[in-house]
Amino acid sequence: MSYRIPQVQRAAFLTCAGGDLTIKSDHPVIQPSELLPGQCLVKLSHSGVCHSDLSIRHDHYAIQCKSNLVGGHEGIGTVVAIGNGTTKTSVKVGDRVGITFMGESCLECEMCMKGHEAQCHNLKSCGYQIDGTFQEYAIAYVSHVVPIPDSLDSAAAAGLLCAGFTVYMALRDSETHVGDWVVISGAGGGLGHLAVQYAVAMGLRVIAVDTGEDKKTFCLKLGAEKWIDFKESKDVAQDIIDIADGLGAHAAIVAAASSSAYETAASYLRRKGYLMVVGLPPHSLLSVPILLVAVKCLTIRGVFIGNRQDIREAVALAAAGKVSCFHTIRGLSELETVYDEMEHGKVVGRVVLDISK
Amino acid sequence: MSYRIPQVQRAAFLTCAGGDLTIKSDHPVIQPSELLPGQCLVKLSHSGVCHSDLSIRHDHYAIQCKSNLVGGHEGIGTVVAIGNGTTKTSVKVGDRVGITFMGESCLECEMCMKGHEAQCHNLKSCGYQIDGTFQEYAIAYVSHVVPIPDSLDSAAAAGLLCAGFTVYMALRDSETHVGDWVVISGAGGGLGHLAVQYAVAMGLRVIAVDTGEDKKTFCLKLGAEKWIDFKESKDVAQDIIDIADGLGAHAAIVAAASSSAYETAASYLRRKGYLMVVGLPPHSLLSVPILLVAVKCLTIRGVFIGNRQDIREAVALAAAGKVSCFHTIRGLSELETVYDEMEHGKVVGRVVLDISK
Amino acid sequence: MSYRIPQVQRAAFLTCAGGDLTIKSDHPVIQPSELLPGQCLVKLSHSGVCHSDLSIRHDHYAIQCKSNLVGGHEGIGTVVAIGNGTTKTSVKVGDRVGITFMGESCLECEMCMKGHEAQCHNLKSCGYQIDGTFQEYAIAYVSHVVPIPDSLDSAAAAGLLCAGFTVYMALRDSETHVGDWVVISGAGGGLGHLAVQYAVAMGLRVIAVDTGEDKKTFCLKLGAEKWIDFKESKDVAQDIIDIADGLGAHAAIVAAASSSAYETAASYLRRKGYLMVVGLPPHSLLSVPILLVAVKCLTIRGVFIGNRQDIREAVALAAAGKVSCFHTIRGLSELETVYDEMEHGKVVGRVVLDISK
Amino acid sequence: MSYRIPQVQRAAFLTCAGGDLTIKSDHPVIQPSELLPGQCLVKLSHSGVCHSDLSIRHDHYAIQCKSNLVGGHEGIGTVVAIGNGTTKTSVKVGDRVGITFMGESCLECEMCMKGHEAQCHNLKSCGYQIDGTFQEYAIAYVSHVVPIPDSLDSAAAAGLLCAGFTVYMALRDSETHVGDWVVISGAGGGLGHLAVQYAVAMGLRVIAVDTGEDKKTFCLKLGAEKWIDFKESKDVAQDIIDIADGLGAHAAIVAAASSSAYETAASYLRRKGYLMVVGLPPHSLLSVPILLVAVKCLTIRGVFIGNRQDIREAVALAAAGKVSCFHTIRGLSELETVYDEMEHGKVVGRVVLDISK
Repeated sequence: MSYRIPQVQRAAFLTCAGGDLTIKSDHPVIQPSELLPGQCLVKLSHSGVCHSDLSIRHDHYAIQCKSNLVGGHEGIGTVVAIGNGTTKTSVKVGDRVGITFMGESCLECEMCMKGHEAQCHNLKSCGYQIDGTFQEYAIAYVSHVVPIPDSLDSAAAAGLLCAGFTVYMALRDSETHVGDWVVISGAGGGLGHLAVQYAVAMGLRVIAVDTGEDKKTFCLKLGAEKWIDFKESKDVAQDIIDIADGLGAHAAIVAAASSSAYETAASYLRRKGYLMVVGLPPHSLLSVPILLVAVKCLTIRGVFIGNRQDIREAVALAAAGKVSCFHTIRGLSELETVYDEMEHGKVVGRVVLDISK
Repeated sequence: MSYRIPQVQRAAFLTCAGGDLTIKSDHPVIQPSELLPGQCLVKLSHSGVCHSDLSIRHDHYAIQCKSNLVGGHEGIGTVVAIGNGTTKTSVKVGDRVGITFMGESCLECEMCMKGHEAQCHNLKSCGYQIDGTFQEYAIAYVSHVVPIPDSLDSAAAAGLLCAGFTVYMALRDSETHVGDWVVISGAGGGLGHLAVQYAVAMGLRVIAVDTGEDKKTFCLKLGAEKWIDFKESKDVAQDIIDIADGLGAHAAIVAAASSSAYETAASYLRRKGYLMVVGLPPHSLLSVPILLVAVKCLTIRGVFIGNRQDIREAVALAAAGKVSCFHTIRGLSELETVYDEMEHGKVVGRVVLDISK
Repeated sequence: MSYRIPQVQRAAFLTCAGGDLTIKSDHPVIQPSELLPGQCLVKLSHSGVCHSDLSIRHDHYAIQCKSNLVGGHEGIGTVVAIGNGTTKTSVKVGDRVGITFMGESCLECEMCMKGHEAQCHNLKSCGYQIDGTFQEYAIAYVSHVVPIPDSLDSAAAAGLLCAGFTVYMALRDSETHVGDWVVISGAGGGLGHLAVQYAVAMGLRVIAVDTGEDKKTFCLKLGAEKWIDFKESKDVAQDIIDIADGLGAHAAIVAAASSSAYETAASYLRRKGYLMVVGLPPHSLLSVPILLVAVKCLTIRGVFIGNRQDIREAVALAAAGKVSCFHTIRGLSELETVYDEMEHGKVVGRVVLDISK
Repeated sequence: MSYRIPQVQRAAFLTCAGGDLTIKSDHPVIQPSELLPGQCLVKLSHSGVCHSDLSIRHDHYAIQCKSNLVGGHEGIGTVVAIGNGTTKTSVKVGDRVGITFMGESCLECEMCMKGHEAQCHNLKSCGYQIDGTFQEYAIAYVSHVVPIPDSLDSAAAAGLLCAGFTVYMALRDSETHVGDWVVISGAGGGLGHLAVQYAVAMGLRVIAVDTGEDKKTFCLKLGAEKWIDFKESKDVAQDIIDIADGLGAHAAIVAAASSSAYETAASYLRRKGYLMVVGLPPHSLLSVPILLVAVKCLTIRGVFIGNRQDIREAVALAAAGKVSCFHTIRGLSELETVYDEMEHGKVVGRVVLDISK
């Protein structure tokens, strides 16, 4: 199979951290002959928009982003070319694949050798340190693209690649097992609604915490067993404890970017419980009393996606119909508007860009 | 074997949290016939003095202490009577045993059934919710006293029962393995010097952090491979990273009751590292950036002693000569003075009270 | 609440290993005043009949059974009296409870202290070393009886107490996670059909192996994703590998008492797979090639029920409607016939005795 | 740095499984320009001789070896050239490196992505499926060669690369912790004496089982706490149980290629114990009673080296002086004689070939 590759393309650029977003129509497309061994060219059809994209734009993270950055790290597209000299054969031209934040890990540093590829010391993070998926043609790495099963729609798959991946890992690393109570804080949001579904697939009992009738209905429909509206509850922690056998929840997945959600979690967790750090309120500290952590023997654990096997598993569960990402499709040209809406909390579920629009 | 039990004894009393310490000579001794099934009477020879004793006195913890409390939870003594109707036979009159903070766990709640007896929902904590070991004769529970191997001296064993137990658990729960780098923060102190020895026994490579030439010599002699004086170092975190392969330490045992030691630990830990919460600065929050926990995938874990098997293992390592508790012997009558010295940071190692003096 | 306790009762006796089964109507009932502290008297309504009961009768196990034994270890009944001097209060007169094989563990030996109560060195195994549940009134231990949630029917609950418990533990200890392939060998049987349901509740993908159209329909209805009839398949191992991504199953629960099922399992397991030893063919060896175990890095793990928390969890999943034990109700008086039918493989699902009949 | 690469070299060839061993002096050396991207050329100074080499020669394993095979998979040498187009930079020309059995794993299959690289479905096993280290110049893979720390002598390092690696993994995967009893069966042998040392480094208590005064002295000197001569003991299993608290050993590392050693291990293991499968008696089954595995809840686990991080850790412990491989140096030209001696059990410790001789 062979594809015609244009010379130029449309791409959304960020000149620098904090700078303007510009959509260019004449951004050069790297040509197949220019690809290095191990690289491939992916023609993107869709890309999810992640809160991290916004945080990168605002320079909220530790590392300075690449200048003239094409953001985006939840891309779905088709491999249209593979670099000469590529020895690995796990994907071929014509395959539909996903591109994640883990653009390329080196596979040789200690973290990679331990199977923690997202913690790679030489990670080329997609849409951050290298150009991402807010463009028509992206360079990706054959060893790191993720095959997308046929049963998944492209737009529906996009949101799994970071949001789904992250909450799947949070649940996997929470040391819970079937029948345990897990609180999803921010359950109706982009991360949270996926967490509810993954948790249900694992046989966990879900207490969804968020606000509003719509989100309540949504969460219960996704399989949450209990609902708490944090604006209506007089005491969220006590309500959770009451539901969870009077002992508290076995784990909390804090998907909300809310500092106080962490404090509350430490209160409602069962002794020996796990507080999974997913939501990232900017410039915030973990304001949890040290004494409480010790006395209850809590484990507070940071989550930052996982390895290449983990994302395949997260995707497979969606392909099997256990999880689906609620999303709204917008055009690439609307990205600035989408960012605006995200800043103002107007987005429900995940926004997925149709790259052709 | 049978023992003469006096009618009255000497005991150190705390009238209430924050109140005075009084030593009474005429405190009644419970008589063997008054013991309930499952209880035993232990004639104490020694008791360690723990920082928690001081914190209980100052009401720094969540639970109000018993009024008219006899404190102390690192007691060593001899079983002189066992309650009628006691069906379990793991100890007998004449045995030398230890009494820990875990006076009695119920063995029936969920935490107990999971093997987390120190997190028992019905825990009778010794020297806090029930009378402890700052007296000549203490009521204890046959199911919870700890046999002391013959090779261990009583005064030397006392400090293992809380300090040793705690740091042993911190290391056990740190998910480290042979050859890993572990930082002991507060390495020259009562908890820390035991942590150094347990870590060495496990084959871990120890970076001792504390201050002063005496502590340096002490820690290196105990087997620490590296030493950092936190008052002299320009950048403790960077120094640790440099020592630990440029990647940081695999785990940190914060034995110092210092809030800043937690912040520093989050910086010098390797990705996927473990921050073990042992030292308890009063009224302090875990001031660690949420983003850092996520990006480095850190695990912050509270430690609060362990179960009955764990303490046996911690003691066995000391009996095998791998660990010994550095201690100074004082008389029970000096307790107030000892507290004073502890408040002013004048105590080196562990103070163990000779109950007969 | 108080119950009238008769002086005599009906009970099914085995004079000795290999001996006759006799049902006596005048077997004395222990009276409340005779109960030791910690004991309770349970008026049984139902008891499951386990293959182990048959094996105990045939003396297939390592330990000699008590002479004049009342067998049975899946009893459901009501606490009608509690021994004087009982200090623990986790059950009270009037509670509906279950009695398991784990009649009483000592809670003081190393295995108990590690949370492995079924491996207790002083285990009083019910229906084996002490009298069991094939009688109207059984002595049980307040610390070991299992509360039965209201939503569970007594007859339906009986089979969970050994069969359900065992396979739940097998799955829990198989180190699988959501989305993994698990083979249940003997899937249509008493143990197997419960394993299918527990596996589905955990989000595992089940390959059911057994024979016959009825069992096929049954297993698929219970949620098995794939079915293999071992009498019709030309190559069971290859069929499983083909289903399981071409790599083999992540775990095998061998619920069939078949030596060859173990050999086959070693062939179809994925590298790093787990072979869970549940079914106990008498006098059989694990005839698995040592080389295969090493090259594939297999883990072969024995399962022998679990602890008191584990059984509560296994029961809770049934109470939540995730698992139900297929059973046929027979009268206690029919026990000999039931044994006969079990010997000849005529039993489908679990037989539960109505003790009143 | 640049090296002169000769056109021909000396290499030991096996024409086919079971065939003759021939040493050729005019075997062509692959030239740097012929190396593929990712490959490097290693000038070998030493190679260990492993029992697997003998087993491969005798065709004892499942896979047919490459015809005209150069065996050997414990090679130490210097990187003299790196293939053009190699993008990874973890080694450079001039580095001293080790070559292990894991010649190249694909880093893309499920096993690799899970961090189980030795179980790679596309493994190119060195000295088996591709040419190994019984030659002067071997092709290796930059992503898979192991850096050798300066403090290690080349001859001393060779035996770590398979023997040391294997037993280190066996101990790591045995779920033991400091203070546990571990039996090393075949403790005085090539694998066993390394296992003793790794176990001691981990803080385990070692019971060495082997035969003869020399081995006894050797094992005790290496740190074994107890010794059992299996030819002199009346009941090896009982002796071990007596030593190990009357409860049995926590784990057994069966390094002896003896079927009966596995049977005995099942008897002397503590309940919940681990039987680690290392020694590979040809064509043997695990003759362990199924009932015993279930009742004692044993775990039997196969060991087949580990991943690239694991071997670095195994080597690091030797570099730190905790472990050293007892070895005899012979010339490459003596390989046939060495095989003969191995067949007749005349070899003590590890034979390491000086490739230049």
